[in-house]
Amino acid sequence: MRAEIISVGTELLLGEIVDTNAPYLSEKLSALGIDVFYRVTVGDNPARLAEALRTALSRADLVITIGGLGPTEDDLTKETVAEVLGERMVSDPESEKAIRAFFERRDLSIAQSNLKQALRPESGISIPNSVGTAPGTIAAKEGKLVIALPGPPAELIPMVENSVIPYLSLKTADSPAVIVSKTLRVIGIGESAAEEKVKELLGSRNPSIAPYAKGGEVHFRITAKAPGRGAAMVMIAEMERRARDKLGDYIYGVDDETLESVVVRMLIERGLKLALAESCTGGLISNRITNVPGSSAAFLACIIAYSNAAKTDLLGVPAELIRRHGAVSPETAEAMAEGAASRTGADIAVAVTGIAGPGGGTPEKPVGLVYMALRTPEGVTSAKHIFGGGRLEIKQRASHAALNLVRLRLLG
Amino acid sequence: MRAEIISVGTELLLGEIVDTNAPYLSEKLSALGIDVFYRVTVGDNPARLAEALRTALSRADLVITIGGLGPTEDDLTKETVAEVLGERMVSDPESEKAIRAFFERRDLSIAQSNLKQALRPESGISIPNSVGTAPGTIAAKEGKLVIALPGPPAELIPMVENSVIPYLSLKTADSPAVIVSKTLRVIGIGESAAEEKVKELLGSRNPSIAPYAKGGEVHFRITAKAPGRGAAMVMIAEMERRARDKLGDYIYGVDDETLESVVVRMLIERGLKLALAESCTGGLISNRITNVPGSSAAFLACIIAYSNAAKTDLLGVPAELIRRHGAVSPETAEAMAEGAASRTGADIAVAVTGIAGPGGGTPEKPVGLVYMALRTPEGVTSAKHIFGGGRLEIKQRASHAALNLVRLRLLG
Repeated sequence: MRAEIISVGTELLLGEIVDTNAPYLSEKLSALGIDVFYRVTVGDNPARLAEALRTALSRADLVITIGGLGPTEDDLTKETVAEVLGERMVSDPESEKAIRAFFERRDLSIAQSNLKQALRPESGISIPNSVGTAPGTIAAKEGKLVIALPGPPAELIPMVENSVIPYLSLKTADSPAVIVSKTLRVIGIGESAAEEKVKELLGSRNPSIAPYAKGGEVHFRITAKAPGRGAAMVMIAEMERRARDKLGDYIYGVDDETLESVVVRMLIERGLKLALAESCTGGLISNRITNVPGSSAAFLACIIAYSNAAKTDLLGVPAELIRRHGAVSPETAEAMAEGAASRTGADIAVAVTGIAGPGGGTPEKPVGLVYMALRTPEGVTSAKHIFGGGRLEIKQRASHAALNLVRLRLLG
Repeated sequence: MRAEIISVGTELLLGEIVDTNAPYLSEKLSALGIDVFYRVTVGDNPARLAEALRTALSRADLVITIGGLGPTEDDLTKETVAEVLGERMVSDPESEKAIRAFFERRDLSIAQSNLKQALRPESGISIPNSVGTAPGTIAAKEGKLVIALPGPPAELIPMVENSVIPYLSLKTADSPAVIVSKTLRVIGIGESAAEEKVKELLGSRNPSIAPYAKGGEVHFRITAKAPGRGAAMVMIAEMERRARDKLGDYIYGVDDETLESVVVRMLIERGLKLALAESCTGGLISNRITNVPGSSAAFLACIIAYSNAAKTDLLGVPAELIRRHGAVSPETAEAMAEGAASRTGADIAVAVTGIAGPGGGTPEKPVGLVYMALRTPEGVTSAKHIFGGGRLEIKQRASHAALNLVRLRLLG
C-alpha cells in the first residue's frame, strides 16, 4: 500500500507553524509497512487542495489529509474531498450528537458553523474525536482510501492511535512486505568520524544503515524490508550487532531513548543520587533530566549559580578562587561540583561553567569555552570543551557533554 | 512570483526528523511577497524527485529544493535538477577550491565523493556554503528558477540569509503586491476566550486577523496585502491598535519575541534582579530565561530543589512545614520563594512546586496541580493552578504561568 499525506493550512505555507503531524503520521504508516512516497502542503484554498487530492489519488492507494476540519469558512477539506470523489455531503448523526453534547457539557450555545463539522462525504464514515469537535472521515472510491484528520496534534494523535492505526492494520494484514527501522543513537563523536567507523556497512542495501546528524547527536538508521516483521527484526539485529562492534560505547541508546533517560535509568539501577551545579547551561541539564518520568528517584537538586556571588553564597566557591582563576576555569568548575555534592549529599555531582555568548568572550576565553567537573566519592575531575554555534547550540552541546560524562562514568 | 518548495530526504518521509527548513523558508519567501502555494516532500529517490520537480516547474516560477547535496551516493538532488532541466553537470571551480580548502584546514584527506559536491548544472551558478562542504545551486530555464539548498539548518540558514534573499530581493523588486504579517502573542487566556474578545475583527479580509494556538499560547496573525510595504504596515498598525484595545495586557509581545525575552527586558529596564526556586518545572523556567542573550544582567540564580531534603537544606523550608502541608502546597511555595530571595538577595523571587506526573498524584492533589509564589519587597503571594496534559505540557504551562506572573507584577 502506498500513501500520500496532504497537510492543509495557510499558516503552514506562511511558515508560522512547523508541521509535526506529517512526520508523526509518516512514522506510524512506515511501521505498518505502508510506503509514503510524497508529502504535500497546501493552503486553505479549495482549488489547489482539489488538485493536490487528484494528483495524490493518481499515484497512491491511501491519501491522508491533515487540517481544515474546523468550524470556520476557511475549513473546507471535507467539502473538497467530497467534490473530488464526486459525492454530496451529509450530516453524520453520531457526530452531530457528539458535537451537541460537547457544547452542552460546557454550557455553551452551539453555532450553525459547529454543526457543519458533523458533515461527511455520503459514502464515508466518521471517526470520533475524543478531544475536540471535529470528527475525522474515512471515504473510499475505486479501491482508493481518503482519510481526513484534524490539524491540532492533541486531536489528531488520539484519533490516529485509537482509530486510524487499528483500521489500517486490518487493511494491511496481508501486506506482502514490511519495512522495519531501528535507530542507534550516538554521542561523543562527530558525524564524519562515526561514518568512517562503519563505512564498510554503509554499502549494504537490505538491511541498510544510514547516518544522519540530529541536534548535536549522530543517529544511524537501520532499515530492513522483509516478507514479515519477524524476518525484518532478525535482519536488523544482525546489522545492529555489526554496528555495535564498530561504535562501542559511542552508542548510548536506540529509537526514542534520550540521553537523559539513559542516564536516569543507569542512576536508578545503581541506586545513585545526582546533583548539579549549572552556570552557562542555565538549567538546561536539569530540565532535560526532569523531563524523564520518575527522575525524582535519582535527581536531588541543582544550583544554578548564574552570578559570581551565587557561586560563592550557594555553592561555597571561594571568592578568592574566582578572582584568581575566573568564573570560567577548571578550578571554579571543580569547586562548584564539590559544593553541589557537599550541600546535597549526592553521590555524583556535575558542574558546568562557560561562556554561552554572544557577549562575554575574550581572546583567552572565547565564546563556546566550557569547563565541566565531575565529583564522585573517588574524587573530582574536570574537562575543557570549546563548542561552536550560537548561544542555544552551545548550551545544548554542553548539556550533551555533561550528561555523557555521567553516562561514561557509570558505564566504566 | 509563485514558489514551490521540495524537501528531499527519506528520513523526512519516515518521520524521523521534523522539517523546520521548509517553514523557515516559507516565512522568508512570504516576507518577500513571494506566494508559496505547494510544499512537497519526497525521499532520496531520483525518479520521484524528478516527477516532483516537473510538477513544480509546471505551476511555479521558482522551485527551491532542500537536501540531498551531501557527498554520499544517496545525495542526488543536483543531478536530478540537471536531468530535468536537460543539462549536463560540470565542476564549479570556486566550489572545488572551497571544498579542498575545507579539508586542508582540518588536515583531512579529501575523498572523491566530496569533490562530487562541487558539481552543478552547466548553466547554473554555485552558492557558497560558509559552514559545510555542500554549495547550493541556482539554475534557470525558460524564465523559471530552480534553487538547490543543503538540508542541515546550520548550513541552509546562512545561505538563505546571505545569498538567496538578496538574490530574490533583486528579482522581486518590481513585484506588484507585498504581503506583510505581524503576530501578536497572547498569554494567560485560552484560545476561544481570546477569539471571543476580538470576534468583531475576525471578519475583516484585508488586513485580516486570525488566531492560532501555539505551545500553550495564543497568537493572532495580522496580514495585509498592499502595493507597497509602507501601505501594508499602516494597515497592520491600524488593525493592531484595534486588537490591543480588546486584548490589553494579555498581549505580551509581537512576532519573534518570547515571554522570557520580554521578562528579561522588563527586569533590566527596571534594574531588578530575579531568583527562582523550581521544583516540578525542574529548571525549565531558568533554562528559558538563560536562553535570552544578556539575561545575566537580571538573573542571579535558581535553586532546583527536587527532593524534600533539598527544599529544607538549600532553601530553608522548615521540614515541619513540609510535613504539615506537603511539598505541593501554597505554604511550601511561599517558603521556597522566601528562601530564594533571602539566599540570593534578589528583588523578585518566584517559586514553583507541583506534580508533573505521570506518578505522584492523589485525589486531593492530582497530577497537574501546581502552586506558585511571588516574593517581592512588598511581601509574598501565591496562586494555585491545575494544568492539563502530560508531564512536558504541565512543565511548559507552569513555566508560562510563572513567567507571566513576573511580567504582570512588573507591569502593574
